[in-house]
Amino acid sequence: MSDTQHSRSLAVGLVQMSMRRDLDENAARAEEGIREAAAQGAKLVCLPELYRLRYFCQSEDAANFDLAEPVPGPSTDRLAALAAELDVTIVAGLFERRAAGVYHNTAVVIDRARGYVGKYRKMHIPDDPRYYEKFYFAPGDLGFASFRTESAELGVLVCWDQWFPEAARMAALKGAEILVYPTAIGWHPEERDEDGDRQLAAWETVQRSHAIANGCFVVAVNRVGFEPEPGGGIEAIDRGESRSESGVAGIEAVSQAGLLPEPVKGRGIEFWGGSFVAAPDGRVLTRAPDDGEAVLTTTIDLGEVEAQRRAWPFFRDRRIDAYDELLARFSDAQE
Amino acid sequence: MSDTQHSRSLAVGLVQMSMRRDLDENAARAEEGIREAAAQGAKLVCLPELYRLRYFCQSEDAANFDLAEPVPGPSTDRLAALAAELDVTIVAGLFERRAAGVYHNTAVVIDRARGYVGKYRKMHIPDDPRYYEKFYFAPGDLGFASFRTESAELGVLVCWDQWFPEAARMAALKGAEILVYPTAIGWHPEERDEDGDRQLAAWETVQRSHAIANGCFVVAVNRVGFEPEPGGGIEAIDRGESRSESGVAGIEAVSQAGLLPEPVKGRGIEFWGGSFVAAPDGRVLTRAPDDGEAVLTTTIDLGEVEAQRRAWPFFRDRRIDAYDELLARFSDAQE
Repeated sequence: MSDTQHSRSLAVGLVQMSMRRDLDENAARAEEGIREAAAQGAKLVCLPELYRLRYFCQSEDAANFDLAEPVPGPSTDRLAALAAELDVTIVAGLFERRAAGVYHNTAVVIDRARGYVGKYRKMHIPDDPRYYEKFYFAPGDLGFASFRTESAELGVLVCWDQWFPEAARMAALKGAEILVYPTAIGWHPEERDEDGDRQLAAWETVQRSHAIANGCFVVAVNRVGFEPEPGGGIEAIDRGESRSESGVAGIEAVSQAGLLPEPVKGRGIEFWGGSFVAAPDGRVLTRAPDDGEAVLTTTIDLGEVEAQRRAWPFFRDRRIDAYDELLARFSDAQE
Repeated sequence: MSDTQHSRSLAVGLVQMSMRRDLDENAARAEEGIREAAAQGAKLVCLPELYRLRYFCQSEDAANFDLAEPVPGPSTDRLAALAAELDVTIVAGLFERRAAGVYHNTAVVIDRARGYVGKYRKMHIPDDPRYYEKFYFAPGDLGFASFRTESAELGVLVCWDQWFPEAARMAALKGAEILVYPTAIGWHPEERDEDGDRQLAAWETVQRSHAIANGCFVVAVNRVGFEPEPGGGIEAIDRGESRSESGVAGIEAVSQAGLLPEPVKGRGIEFWGGSFVAAPDGRVLTRAPDDGEAVLTTTIDLGEVEAQRRAWPFFRDRRIDAYDELLARFSDAQE
């Protein structure tokens, strides 16, 4: 399928992480992952959604808004310095504080020489048991975007967006060669035996289909590992402040002081990892395990985008004269 | 995933056929397939695209327009009689003659008691080597539809439509519980070794994703077997007229008279069968072989539609305020 005339190699690194309670520890571990990917040759490195944080959306607690940060801000500064040092493009998810009462689930794009390129604010916001995101995140108002970077044209989307063909299509229409999905998705342990395999399969399948339908690559980067449902809301997360005083040992101290809840056996989310890269024909090029951290680097040929779209020219044949009702919630008139 | 309160069983039959040169023979064999599916208990029976015809679009020959027929017309009358007799709903693909110079690739819906319910005219028309459909078929102008039948709400689409998430979405928004895709797709034999597996995988994957993204069932019914690329256009297809004079033996007579071209070794389409039913979570419930005819009947629970959409409420969260650019051919402005 590749087209030698348009051949352009790009090594893509995925940092599949588990998250600790300490924000700075997560940031440091993400940095280690980026360094490892760069050492493997990656020129584009992708981190999960909300990579500095445990997935606090398992409960609704207004105190968690303290975890948000400006974007651009300290985290993008740190990533930009790293991108310059390592000569990599970085995509990562952050909890954005835009204003008092206005917070977003945001993904940022950091380029090698330019640093902060831009951000995408998650457009589709879920609200399911243990994924109470509508409480925390205002729906994105920047629309869908593709970012031109030194690595490639990157369509950046976040997690729940991956279930919406519209999101993938719009990013592709804006020029994306790669759709990048920083993600935080997993099993409810009590459902896993019954539904776990098909949930994971559906998640991968629908994203592979975005690659196929749009003739582009898809990179999904998920977190991994069990995170208990907080019994006490914000106390489940150790803030950087306390760590800055006492370091990692401080976490134990806090825990011993009773501020950290005991994990509730079986209640929580078992993040399923499974980060992967799919080619424009939907084949999976690399896939991380569902039960452990991983830094995976795989080399793709961006020329496949051109070759695939020539072979299967879906963009040519879209019936843009007949799609108006895609803008409707539902079409109630029958026949 | 099923929801007992909304549980509704439906036995769905798929008639995966190979096509002969003789139109009436194909019609008769389709009828046999429908009878077999009904005997297996099917209440909804689906035939492939253009089920009465060899896939004549392998060449561009204006004489092939003689193969078209009015819709509704003789074929729908025949199917309606059969539907009434067997108490089944039927979906089937026909070559519609609408007016001189206006032809469509059309799928019809025939209900048990009501007979002819309506038609869908293929909206997305391919044009690839050996699939010269833009020559033959005017793009559909009836839009996307869901048909309320005694069996289920049926979103009817045709073949190339299956690569377009927009088509699936619009049929689902109109109420479809099942998306039915009469199909004619296969390998170029000379590409099969290199690309065959991933082409077939992509085809199945993208349709499974329509089931997932829309929380509905998908039924794809393909033809199977090799059909040579016609050397002489229309002569490759034996019309019903000649058969009505001489029966099956007449085909041989025509062949001996030199009107039927010899199959060109290796040039043609090897239709890949692989008809399947996918559930709203994307799992494949049944799948026909890629190398032979099959009548498959599988019982689905339409209650899964309600259950799946409650579990994964994508329709709730669609950003209909932000999808305007889906109506654009391409978005050229960057960032």
